[in-house]
Amino acid sequence: MTRPIFLLTDFGTRDHHAGQVRAVISGIASGAPILDLTHHADPFAVDHGAWLLETALPALPAGAVVFAVVDPGVGTARRGLAVSSGGRLFVGPDNGILSSALRQSWTAVELQTAEFRRDPVSPTFHARDIFGPAAAHLASGVELDRLGPSVSDPVLLPPFCAREGASSRLEGYIIHVDHFGNAISTVRSSQLPASYTIQAGECRIEAFARTFGEASPGVPASYIDSSGFLGITINQGNAAEALGLTRGSPVTVVPA
Amino acid sequence: MTRPIFLLTDFGTRDHHAGQVRAVISGIASGAPILDLTHHADPFAVDHGAWLLETALPALPAGAVVFAVVDPGVGTARRGLAVSSGGRLFVGPDNGILSSALRQSWTAVELQTAEFRRDPVSPTFHARDIFGPAAAHLASGVELDRLGPSVSDPVLLPPFCAREGASSRLEGYIIHVDHFGNAISTVRSSQLPASYTIQAGECRIEAFARTFGEASPGVPASYIDSSGFLGITINQGNAAEALGLTRGSPVTVVPA
Amino acid sequence: MTRPIFLLTDFGTRDHHAGQVRAVISGIASGAPILDLTHHADPFAVDHGAWLLETALPALPAGAVVFAVVDPGVGTARRGLAVSSGGRLFVGPDNGILSSALRQSWTAVELQTAEFRRDPVSPTFHARDIFGPAAAHLASGVELDRLGPSVSDPVLLPPFCAREGASSRLEGYIIHVDHFGNAISTVRSSQLPASYTIQAGECRIEAFARTFGEASPGVPASYIDSSGFLGITINQGNAAEALGLTRGSPVTVVPA
Repeated sequence: MTRPIFLLTDFGTRDHHAGQVRAVISGIASGAPILDLTHHADPFAVDHGAWLLETALPALPAGAVVFAVVDPGVGTARRGLAVSSGGRLFVGPDNGILSSALRQSWTAVELQTAEFRRDPVSPTFHARDIFGPAAAHLASGVELDRLGPSVSDPVLLPPFCAREGASSRLEGYIIHVDHFGNAISTVRSSQLPASYTIQAGECRIEAFARTFGEASPGVPASYIDSSGFLGITINQGNAAEALGLTRGSPVTVVPA
Repeated sequence: MTRPIFLLTDFGTRDHHAGQVRAVISGIASGAPILDLTHHADPFAVDHGAWLLETALPALPAGAVVFAVVDPGVGTARRGLAVSSGGRLFVGPDNGILSSALRQSWTAVELQTAEFRRDPVSPTFHARDIFGPAAAHLASGVELDRLGPSVSDPVLLPPFCAREGASSRLEGYIIHVDHFGNAISTVRSSQLPASYTIQAGECRIEAFARTFGEASPGVPASYIDSSGFLGITINQGNAAEALGLTRGSPVTVVPA
Repeated sequence: MTRPIFLLTDFGTRDHHAGQVRAVISGIASGAPILDLTHHADPFAVDHGAWLLETALPALPAGAVVFAVVDPGVGTARRGLAVSSGGRLFVGPDNGILSSALRQSWTAVELQTAEFRRDPVSPTFHARDIFGPAAAHLASGVELDRLGPSVSDPVLLPPFCAREGASSRLEGYIIHVDHFGNAISTVRSSQLPASYTIQAGECRIEAFARTFGEASPGVPASYIDSSGFLGITINQGNAAEALGLTRGSPVTVVPA
């Protein structure tokens, strides 16, 4: 059995970009399950891709191969990486998208071996011509160190968490708005004081909900997202629209 | 061979919600095909999800496992179910989304067995932590009754069909607008009189088309959708936009 | 091992159209990988579907089965085809969408054999009832000629390329706008003179970029897309929006 391959990109679904990657992988790792995490990382937003990968990581099975490509620098001097970490394998550009895989013990190589690339390589589509083949060969059992020389200094983004401000306030920002309009912040539940209110956009949020259903309809409430980050929701409404929150909007936790 | 697992949700595709469900399933039922029905049930719209499941049912192979989650009550007291019906297996919240599986002989259990859940269970993501694992274990051959105690009174939605009004009129509503703008109603083809006109929005529709291509361009026509329900179409146009029809818009069939 | 099946349609993803096709295929070719190329060919746009297929073709593995359905004439007299070409198999309507498969040595049949269809066949959903089953049976090893009688005159679209205009100008049009706003034209890189400028919309484009990253931010530049066609991009911006380019917009290459 070949390993399953999970795809995380900013390609969207209206093109055949992801489709061509699937086609190439399927030609190399025939029979390997090819499964989407999502193709809707915000375009060019490496930090958004990194957050999506970090929060998906606990759900990914041992042995999984993760293809994570948000790559505004495609074809430039930035390196392509394969990383082994925590029993899983990762491929993607060396721009920080793989940060969560690099926060525990890891080994990494630069994708250079011609044998494991398509020929020729398009300067605008390394996903199809370099990263896809690398993921497929790894899924088929090729050893990591055959893909290229060792890398000791991969790009690492700062961890997602709130920073402490004046008067013990926690200052974070919205990192993700989900399909339902829930706005999820960089504030980790482990950082929260026992009692607090939240300032987000123009709005002060006092209610807390353990589940969406227990929040009063129409009233914004905070909750702990399934990824362990503080989120803002409106029961059966769209909190991000109602409060004008988008990725990057500041969120402040004020201790009571 | 493990059973194929079909996913039907209101998660959309811009998040990694569906992706995390795929990841969890893949870690339990390794090698089971994981196939999307759709992730675009309208958010929180249990009846829309139930209709999508009902109309997909005849296409689903014997032995399929269906993961059907539109779940505004996630984490509250509503039960989680696994249902065996017609040779297929279903998991989802006990809110009516599984109604079509419950219209023939069935057995059902409440998803309670800790061994077949993730630990801990997030109060906002039972799809990943309860329903996904249940679907995967069923696909791998775990017997239904090991998942929890028997349920005799699952929630059932009323059937999708038009009700009879004054003067033998049939009164239904739009239950689905498809990607092409075809507006599909709750009126079943079996309910239709031999000759009729249709009132939908501000528009009276007299034309009937057996195929999209035989409708006159620009002229709204009714047709029988591939699911057996009465639909409204404009050949190579967008009927829902042109007529202002959305889910819930009333549709009346007037016998000629 | 059954062959992998690739899906290319204009169904979008908000319905369960593609999902029902997957369900039917999975019931016939159990275990065959079912992989999306894309479901976002523009609605009813056969030429757009044909271009997506042509540009995906080099990535598709030997032995692949391709299900390509953009089918405004569904249920009318247009034929359904299965084609063998270049070691791959294709099914789709006989409207030109399969043109790229017909530009090399090929054999084709009309899909007529009742045994390889669903029964009954909906006049509005041949994808589910005819093309899906045909793809699945081919993936399972059924010989092409069992699906129906030989076809010698399938519909062929003109090739995608620019035509030569006055003063050695090349005249093409935008055939695809991708998720990032890159606008890709019908001008093939092999047609380009050594030195040129481009007229697209109201804009004259003088810059050329080998990669997206080397284009100056905010300045439209041309590039050679990974499919070998001339494209127009703005580094980390949306070229199609900025220049008002949509599918069909004229593009002229003016030799320097």
